[in-house]
Amino acid sequence: MTSKTGATGVSDGEQVKSKSQLKKEEKLAAKAMKKEQFKTMNKTNTNDQESGEDISVGKYGVLKMIQSSKSVVSDRVFVDVKNIMTILADNSVWIRGRLHTSRAKGKQCFMVVRQQQWSIQVLAVVSDTISKQFVKFCSNINKESIVDIKGKVTRTPSKIGSCSQQDVELHIEELWVVSQSANQLPLLIEDASRPVKGDDDEDQGLNIKVNQDTRLDNRVIDLRTPANQAIFRLEAGVCKIFRDLLTAKGFVEIHTPKMINAASEGGANVFTISYFKGSAYLAQSPQLYKQMAIAGDFDRVFTIGAVFRAEDSNTYRHLTEFVGLDLEMAFKYHYHEVVDVIGSLFTNIFKGLRDNYQSEIKTICEQYPVEPFKFLDPPLKLEFPTAVNMLREAGVEMGDEDDLSTPNEKLLGRLVKAKYDTDFYILDKFPLAIRPFYTMPDPDSKVASNSYDMFMRGEEILSGAQRIHDSDYLIERAKHHQVDIEKIAAYIDAFRYGCPPHAGGGIGLERVVMLYLGLDNIRKVSMFPRDPKRLTP
Amino acid sequence: MTSKTGATGVSDGEQVKSKSQLKKEEKLAAKAMKKEQFKTMNKTNTNDQESGEDISVGKYGVLKMIQSSKSVVSDRVFVDVKNIMTILADNSVWIRGRLHTSRAKGKQCFMVVRQQQWSIQVLAVVSDTISKQFVKFCSNINKESIVDIKGKVTRTPSKIGSCSQQDVELHIEELWVVSQSANQLPLLIEDASRPVKGDDDEDQGLNIKVNQDTRLDNRVIDLRTPANQAIFRLEAGVCKIFRDLLTAKGFVEIHTPKMINAASEGGANVFTISYFKGSAYLAQSPQLYKQMAIAGDFDRVFTIGAVFRAEDSNTYRHLTEFVGLDLEMAFKYHYHEVVDVIGSLFTNIFKGLRDNYQSEIKTICEQYPVEPFKFLDPPLKLEFPTAVNMLREAGVEMGDEDDLSTPNEKLLGRLVKAKYDTDFYILDKFPLAIRPFYTMPDPDSKVASNSYDMFMRGEEILSGAQRIHDSDYLIERAKHHQVDIEKIAAYIDAFRYGCPPHAGGGIGLERVVMLYLGLDNIRKVSMFPRDPKRLTP
Repeated sequence: MTSKTGATGVSDGEQVKSKSQLKKEEKLAAKAMKKEQFKTMNKTNTNDQESGEDISVGKYGVLKMIQSSKSVVSDRVFVDVKNIMTILADNSVWIRGRLHTSRAKGKQCFMVVRQQQWSIQVLAVVSDTISKQFVKFCSNINKESIVDIKGKVTRTPSKIGSCSQQDVELHIEELWVVSQSANQLPLLIEDASRPVKGDDDEDQGLNIKVNQDTRLDNRVIDLRTPANQAIFRLEAGVCKIFRDLLTAKGFVEIHTPKMINAASEGGANVFTISYFKGSAYLAQSPQLYKQMAIAGDFDRVFTIGAVFRAEDSNTYRHLTEFVGLDLEMAFKYHYHEVVDVIGSLFTNIFKGLRDNYQSEIKTICEQYPVEPFKFLDPPLKLEFPTAVNMLREAGVEMGDEDDLSTPNEKLLGRLVKAKYDTDFYILDKFPLAIRPFYTMPDPDSKVASNSYDMFMRGEEILSGAQRIHDSDYLIERAKHHQVDIEKIAAYIDAFRYGCPPHAGGGIGLERVVMLYLGLDNIRKVSMFPRDPKRLTP
Repeated sequence: MTSKTGATGVSDGEQVKSKSQLKKEEKLAAKAMKKEQFKTMNKTNTNDQESGEDISVGKYGVLKMIQSSKSVVSDRVFVDVKNIMTILADNSVWIRGRLHTSRAKGKQCFMVVRQQQWSIQVLAVVSDTISKQFVKFCSNINKESIVDIKGKVTRTPSKIGSCSQQDVELHIEELWVVSQSANQLPLLIEDASRPVKGDDDEDQGLNIKVNQDTRLDNRVIDLRTPANQAIFRLEAGVCKIFRDLLTAKGFVEIHTPKMINAASEGGANVFTISYFKGSAYLAQSPQLYKQMAIAGDFDRVFTIGAVFRAEDSNTYRHLTEFVGLDLEMAFKYHYHEVVDVIGSLFTNIFKGLRDNYQSEIKTICEQYPVEPFKFLDPPLKLEFPTAVNMLREAGVEMGDEDDLSTPNEKLLGRLVKAKYDTDFYILDKFPLAIRPFYTMPDPDSKVASNSYDMFMRGEEILSGAQRIHDSDYLIERAKHHQVDIEKIAAYIDAFRYGCPPHAGGGIGLERVVMLYLGLDNIRKVSMFPRDPKRLTP
């Protein structure tokens, strides 16, 4: 038997049925009724019996909750909406998807059924085989309900602009509601999917927009927009390419603890945990652990995991919890061995996205238009003094050892783009004075260090350096920075028993995705973002 | 120039040098000396000048700290120890590795150089080209120091049992210390690598063992043992196979927040965080978020990340922070669609380890011998009542709806192994009474639920279920369990707007690795374990 046993659910027992159908269904129906697991979809449907016998009985209704009953054995094969094309014309197919929209028009009901980034039009028209009641039932289903539909694939006379499947539609044969949505939705997918247009667009004011907090408060619905479906698939792609490339280069994946006994970056901006009778902290970076893995002979390691920052920054680009893509690598003579690996990692991520996530990028751009991301292969590498000169030529006043302010960082991005036509570049040789104590000084310079940042569309997405691998020298540099040696004893101890020279870096996953796509808020690329004001859902 | 410019480091300026060498080196040396970055490896070496000119000058010493200087440009090509085989005989190669052991014997010094799981013997013998001073220098290098060695690959007359490379050794030509280890080691790799033998082994008492806490306190050294090198490579393999397989099956990787505003599993055993002016909790499971992703149309998702349990359990198998491999999947009619995916996931993990991590498994078994892991393909699936019967037949008294105690779980594992010859099996249809409120009841049974655990060597490594996807029914079940509806409002809300039937499960990574390898403590497979008494390193 198929799962259509639940068909009586729409009738509250009043519906007139063919004998054969009743015979098939009564046994299970009786059992289910006893359990009160039948539901009534829509009262108007059950009362609409004035036209006598419903020729579509057994072809539509609300399914009994799918509970994996032994008695429901179906060999029904479902087709993915994205695969329904003209080649399937005149075949009947089953789909399971969400009712995106439905619009009744006389004896017709036009529905759009959505499946992730794809959608198809479904047409129900009163006919010899489709009853008035069936069409009315279709038009009364709540949006966002999950439905099983059987329909005949039919070529459309003209392209359907509102669907991903533009050349075909389904002519309905059966429809079963699998899971009902509430009648009132806190936001509509249509509104949440509406393309962002320029300020000068005169239609802009007429369209309802969904604000960020409404989206995030109702993330379960918001995530269903085609753009969001694509964003998080692309984000998964970034992680996949990162891992595949590093694994191919001999890196070992490690897992580093998030609960630590001392603040990893000096004590500021750290979350405190009650740990049994004592306290612990949430790691702000896996750096110490990556370095310990290097000192522990793993040679090349990466880790992907949550990173925590107790910064009270309420900006478009700060989160209190984000995903760090971290790597650390021993090298032979020069930290550029590592910079080259990281540079080619990014080039490969950009190529991989461009080549394998074209459909996702297209879908996202339909809602959030952006210039395609440009990059050079091999990537552009500038030294810090060059950047300072470029900024000075553009009128910025800054000292040789000043850090880049956020506005200058962005200006530099524009200057680099104008000059080199790339949205990604590496800035090497940051002044030692503005980097942490464990950064290896450049032995050939009085001011520079062996450290680097990397930028996408003018914003930093990676910070890294050659780390000091000699415990004595580390103590010397810590003292120079007036760091309390006792507090970092465990860190220093990691280098007492021989450690190869090494360098690495940490990448903020969400920033990479936000900037690659040119989005305006990091919350758009964090599935369940955390900021100083948001801990839910 | 090559990096041997640091050679004068051994001499404190007293060493007699050839003019040409001095010429080459003086410029850089002077600069380096000024910076006081030269080190003296061993005073005995520098004082050992009674024999006149050292014919090996410039062939050994302590390298200046590798700081990525422009002046160090080397085209030296290093060979991996694992690749040094008889085919390379009579070639000179460079290796960088750790000095595992060195043993002076007259005019000879036998060294073993280690590189992760591999090791090779290096021989220094006083000769026409190798000075007495050079050999003495070799014998005085602290164990665990990192060294660059040039040597001629030479066939050995008989196999070298103590090295991974048994048929060849290196006859030394140059040796440079890259990073010195402290003289005193808190533990010796030889001790930490010693095979675990049965209690009846009479040698057992004579060998020094390293206890767990000493290992963990000095994890940077402990991680260097061949077994540990292999364990964490194999662990990375489990994650890789997990992801590759699920990605191939259309699963999307997601990242779920670790900081949440309410305890995910009811409030017990949860760590509290100070979150700005309020509080937050550390997630005990990503389950709610996986389910929200399903309600948000991602269809099939997985996530790998830290999971936190504030349980004061000081056992061999509990950690307060571990790595969860979680998945959740929408299905069409029956949760066995999901159980089958998880079952084949495990089969594929076991096959992948067996086929691609043979060298790691062999290395680990040399220290921790164990019976090879046995599994069936497809995996064995038993129902709970069958397990109860097996236990009763073995003399256990238990009710139909009693949970499995840990001893009974293990006994059952032995019974299943004896009967079916498998170390992995699925136990389906757990009694509803002992599962959480969100578990879908079995509609065909009064006591069973659509839930399952999976076991390796008699211990649970996965727990999962079909979850209730209907908000009304979820409320009904929550009330039945006397769960406060208000506290789980956000969870219930996730299912108000249509959700496909779905099931999933959570796997403890460390348990999988521990049990696959038959290890006796979960701390052996957590790189930096956390338990109620350990937050360091």
